[in-house]
Amino acid sequence: MRLALDEARAAAARDEVPIGAVVVGPDGRVLSRAGNRVEEHCDPSAHAELLTMRAAGAALNSPRLTGCTLYVTLEPCPMCAAAIVHFRPARVVFGAYDPKGGGVEHGPRLFERPECLHRPEVIGGVAEREAADLLRAFFAARRPPRTRPAPTDPPA
Amino acid sequence: MRLALDEARAAAARDEVPIGAVVVGPDGRVLSRAGNRVEEHCDPSAHAELLTMRAAGAALNSPRLTGCTLYVTLEPCPMCAAAIVHFRPARVVFGAYDPKGGGVEHGPRLFERPECLHRPEVIGGVAEREAADLLRAFFAARRPPRTRPAPTDPPA
Repeated sequence: MRLALDEARAAAARDEVPIGAVVVGPDGRVLSRAGNRVEEHCDPSAHAELLTMRAAGAALNSPRLTGCTLYVTLEPCPMCAAAIVHFRPARVVFGAYDPKGGGVEHGPRLFERPECLHRPEVIGGVAEREAADLLRAFFAARRPPRTRPAPTDPPA
Repeated sequence: MRLALDEARAAAARDEVPIGAVVVGPDGRVLSRAGNRVEEHCDPSAHAELLTMRAAGAALNSPRLTGCTLYVTLEPCPMCAAAIVHFRPARVVFGAYDPKGGGVEHGPRLFERPECLHRPEVIGGVAEREAADLLRAFFAARRPPRTRPAPTDPPA
């Protein structure tokens, strides 16, 4: 998760939403690491999870990440959760929970659906505060400053 | 949908599951077309929809496919349905329904969920038979031949 957090920080430095992900093989070797590249690639599907799973598949020359662990700093969205089902890593470890956009512990909870063809072990909330702080700081810096409401005229 | 079916046929010729997709801009111009490249890229996320939406975004230099129509020969899976939410085309036209693997009219029905941030117009069943026949023929040709059960010994 340290490496995934490093990728998240590197994403923020590129002005991307700070989310990072890493795939580790069954032997503990790091197969791939990536941060969000949505802005750079002009591609809203360029989430850290998809990029790193794709790279890990290429590294293994296999479309299945059998026995691998995906580490990601934020609960995967439904697109990435469904991609995880396709890539089939054994385990997903994520940092912050995402009540609005998550697809694992929130929203459609894709791994719990009856038609789901692969249910990885899921461990959420690992380095949660650090992952969430990165996101909070990123969005706080980009929010327009709160203007103080203009004082109302005194009643006539 | 003709072009999407052509892409599906081209995918079959490459030994890929025959699914094709096309993105058409608001002015009717074809922005991108793709067939499945899962085997070729060793990437189970290389679905026709994702590939063509990514290419359309690159063609428009925009991560949002505002006003565009995505044509695809099979009902999108949950990964592609969720990616559609991210890319925001105005309309999705699909061919065959996919009761087992679909994510639009089946399974999690992602566009109908309360947290869904973009609900495209959806038209299913367009050139349904042709799209389904392509898939059926592809899988029938790859199924191991049914062996005739060995004749049982006559009762002693």
